[in-house]
Amino acid sequence: MTKYNLVKNAAGRMVPTEINGKTLVPFMGIGNYRPTGRKYAPPIATCADYPSDGNKLIPSLKEALIKSGLKNGMTISTHHHFRNGDLVAQQIFDIAFELDIKDLVWFPSASFECHSTLIKYLEDGTIHHIEGSMNGALGKFTTEGKMKGVGVLRSHGGRYQAVQDGDVHIDIAVIAAPTADTFGNATGDRGPTACGLLGFALADSQYADKVIIVSDNLVPFPCVPWQIHGNNVDYVVNIDKIGIPEKIVSGTTEITKSPDRLLLAEMTAQFCEEAGIVKDGFSFQAGAGGTALSIGTYFADACREKGIKARFARGGSNKYLVKMLEEGLTDYILDGQTFDLEGVRSMRENPGHLNTSPFTSYNYHGKGNFSSMVDVVILGATEVDVNYNANVVSHSDGYLLHGIGGWQNCLFSKCTILPIPLFRDRIPVIKDEVTTICGPGELIDVIVTERGIAINPLRKDLIEKLKNSTLPIKTIEQLKEEGEKICGVPDKPKFTDEVVAIVKWVDGTVIDTVWKIDK
Amino acid sequence: MTKYNLVKNAAGRMVPTEINGKTLVPFMGIGNYRPTGRKYAPPIATCADYPSDGNKLIPSLKEALIKSGLKNGMTISTHHHFRNGDLVAQQIFDIAFELDIKDLVWFPSASFECHSTLIKYLEDGTIHHIEGSMNGALGKFTTEGKMKGVGVLRSHGGRYQAVQDGDVHIDIAVIAAPTADTFGNATGDRGPTACGLLGFALADSQYADKVIIVSDNLVPFPCVPWQIHGNNVDYVVNIDKIGIPEKIVSGTTEITKSPDRLLLAEMTAQFCEEAGIVKDGFSFQAGAGGTALSIGTYFADACREKGIKARFARGGSNKYLVKMLEEGLTDYILDGQTFDLEGVRSMRENPGHLNTSPFTSYNYHGKGNFSSMVDVVILGATEVDVNYNANVVSHSDGYLLHGIGGWQNCLFSKCTILPIPLFRDRIPVIKDEVTTICGPGELIDVIVTERGIAINPLRKDLIEKLKNSTLPIKTIEQLKEEGEKICGVPDKPKFTDEVVAIVKWVDGTVIDTVWKIDK
Repeated sequence: MTKYNLVKNAAGRMVPTEINGKTLVPFMGIGNYRPTGRKYAPPIATCADYPSDGNKLIPSLKEALIKSGLKNGMTISTHHHFRNGDLVAQQIFDIAFELDIKDLVWFPSASFECHSTLIKYLEDGTIHHIEGSMNGALGKFTTEGKMKGVGVLRSHGGRYQAVQDGDVHIDIAVIAAPTADTFGNATGDRGPTACGLLGFALADSQYADKVIIVSDNLVPFPCVPWQIHGNNVDYVVNIDKIGIPEKIVSGTTEITKSPDRLLLAEMTAQFCEEAGIVKDGFSFQAGAGGTALSIGTYFADACREKGIKARFARGGSNKYLVKMLEEGLTDYILDGQTFDLEGVRSMRENPGHLNTSPFTSYNYHGKGNFSSMVDVVILGATEVDVNYNANVVSHSDGYLLHGIGGWQNCLFSKCTILPIPLFRDRIPVIKDEVTTICGPGELIDVIVTERGIAINPLRKDLIEKLKNSTLPIKTIEQLKEEGEKICGVPDKPKFTDEVVAIVKWVDGTVIDTVWKIDK
Repeated sequence: MTKYNLVKNAAGRMVPTEINGKTLVPFMGIGNYRPTGRKYAPPIATCADYPSDGNKLIPSLKEALIKSGLKNGMTISTHHHFRNGDLVAQQIFDIAFELDIKDLVWFPSASFECHSTLIKYLEDGTIHHIEGSMNGALGKFTTEGKMKGVGVLRSHGGRYQAVQDGDVHIDIAVIAAPTADTFGNATGDRGPTACGLLGFALADSQYADKVIIVSDNLVPFPCVPWQIHGNNVDYVVNIDKIGIPEKIVSGTTEITKSPDRLLLAEMTAQFCEEAGIVKDGFSFQAGAGGTALSIGTYFADACREKGIKARFARGGSNKYLVKMLEEGLTDYILDGQTFDLEGVRSMRENPGHLNTSPFTSYNYHGKGNFSSMVDVVILGATEVDVNYNANVVSHSDGYLLHGIGGWQNCLFSKCTILPIPLFRDRIPVIKDEVTTICGPGELIDVIVTERGIAINPLRKDLIEKLKNSTLPIKTIEQLKEEGEKICGVPDKPKFTDEVVAIVKWVDGTVIDTVWKIDK
């Protein structure tokens, strides 16, 4: 077990100053860390090294990995657009194992339950550690201290930032593409395994030393749209099947039928109405999940009734947003991730359904990004504390459970609302202190629970606007007490002093530490 | 007058080893120069420095230039999508003059006759030199040795390469945009001064320290399509008028009516037929100019007659290509520059009319590019020599007259044909030695003149295919003799030993020198 030098960061959390041999910067407060360096500069390529007929086809992924120089200790990236239907990540590490390669870093944009089969490679040393989300079985494995290295959790924007800034150097990017040409132009919006866009692979394509496109649907040049530019691609591989279509579609694509969740959605929508957010030309982002989807349909109803329209809706796109677009209730969908087949169809057919990326939407080390221009964003959380700090990666039992996704990035919207139940499985969600801080309270504006709504005291404007509301406006302390009155105060999980993962803030600093669970 | 150290390069030309304080690499032969460095790495930005509401609007271009830190010796870039209707470049240097700034480097993607008004700033030292095309009056000025520094001529792809590789560091990019939002997202395909795409400004937006969008048509966020990403933009300026629409459209947008040129077009088309190039799924690029346009319509006729279609046509788009697309005679137009309003409309409306850039199409320091995948390209030239070397920047009188455009980049196509008259103004076009080498003969396959067609002896395959042709196949020496028999051998222009400009090859090496004319 490695001992780490710890410092207290600006969120009051103890964080290591170094992990996996890399120096870290502790979180310094929002907007306080100032990058001084330059973007990562990939080696200059030359057309002289690439086939003049543009054909970069290689017979197998194995051969492509060998040609890319796969060796011990390299960082291999993948995207998660296939979600739980991904068939490519597994193959990469099967090949690495076969070639007796060790200590790889897996750098996915997210992991899913299907990737729990990689645990054997974490155990046998093929994979040293994961930089990306460690969900489900991978989360349990990590939290129990079984991963050789320390995990690194980043937001989607933080992942782009890390690659752009050279914090993470990708040796080989493997980009699964539903449609591609042999030059390496690739798109996700068509083909038998269509997943919509490929935005999570953008940074990888731009900055990795070697870029491999893996497709099961090659078309003659040019593959359009070229969401990924063949000009950044080294090799193209054609395999039988890159994903399982029915699992590519996100699990949560239906509006909730739960009365509790519907109540949360209704209260949130009413809050937005009374706060004056739902007006002509407004914008919103509602994540995946039944509650968020319901709020979207409330917004659609409000637009229809008032005869107004949204300027844009940020997606995760789904059939409800597509309906809004097609009905003329929003000018645009700015899509970061396509959640169902209606979203895929719309992206392919509708010029108002736009392909975005972590670069356009989330990268904090750019000259601005889209997230701060969104009027209201509806997000989830596993825990919130009385200072409005929120957790999205671990549960109250201390185990890693989710990745951050775009959650941290979305906090920069003009109004961030977390509709959450007051308790889950008889464990209160609002507490004195969250297990893991993922978002600083000053960016979280409103907590909506079935028993009351708390507005962050920093948002005097919202408090003023809601002062005559019929909604049950309470303090966060009141909500905490109510929750604890019903459920009691649960025991905190016990941790060892071993660091198993760190959580990065959007600027690459370390906002919190995930500790090994003490079972 | 500065004396330069000269060396003979692989094209046999004497070129300087240093100009404007920068070391140069002489041309080493096609594909022989191997870049070893890394791409230029711009400083890392942070959202903390940009307005969270995304509004980067600045009251005037002057203020934006001052905020961008305009000072002596800086490099200022502009694009040429407005061609002879550009109203922005002039304003930049008017402001610089007003602020008493000296020794600027102007780095346009091309210059036009309208820019001859900048000569006064070249004379008074506001502008030190131009890196870009020096046409018309600017060409005369340069060739007469009046420019303070040495001019640098690059192809469109070479310009992208130079910026990407850090050979040219752009301090401030000023990007005129027909439509934009205050975040800096910008497009050329709509608005009162619509010019189609903005691809020539892509490198500038990606790599310049400061990026200013100047528009006369601001729309609410998001401006779509975002041909230029606001995430790369520092400031946005709204002015009355950025371009003169009727001059934005290229001069040469009609098929030739000249019987001589029609003959050239017909012979070229027949050559392509007999060489087996015009077949289902083929691709072609025909530049601007009446002859090239005519050849495009011959291809369209051939497709219609044979019931085949092209996979793609590379543009310069125009109404003839648009007609092909809309008639289903080509799957795609891959457009690098929009030459008329039908092209603009089609790009805006037709998903098969694609926005390309010097990055996708021409950059030699990428992992391949589009140009080598084109089956046949039809280009012009001012002179060709008996070794098939060709000139496109100067005339036989020794004066700079054109920029290189995409010409050098297009030479990498599978078949490069130059249809040229045997003489112009009673001066033979085929000579022992061209005034300036822009393209090495080994990349130029066929010369079509009204009195005969010469096939490069390197292309044994083409010679074989045309062996029974009814076309007048001759040697290049025969063509030269015929020209000289009619016109005589003209005197060569006289030059001093002063270097006034250099011509870069696509890899950044120096292929030739432009000398001061000895009047």
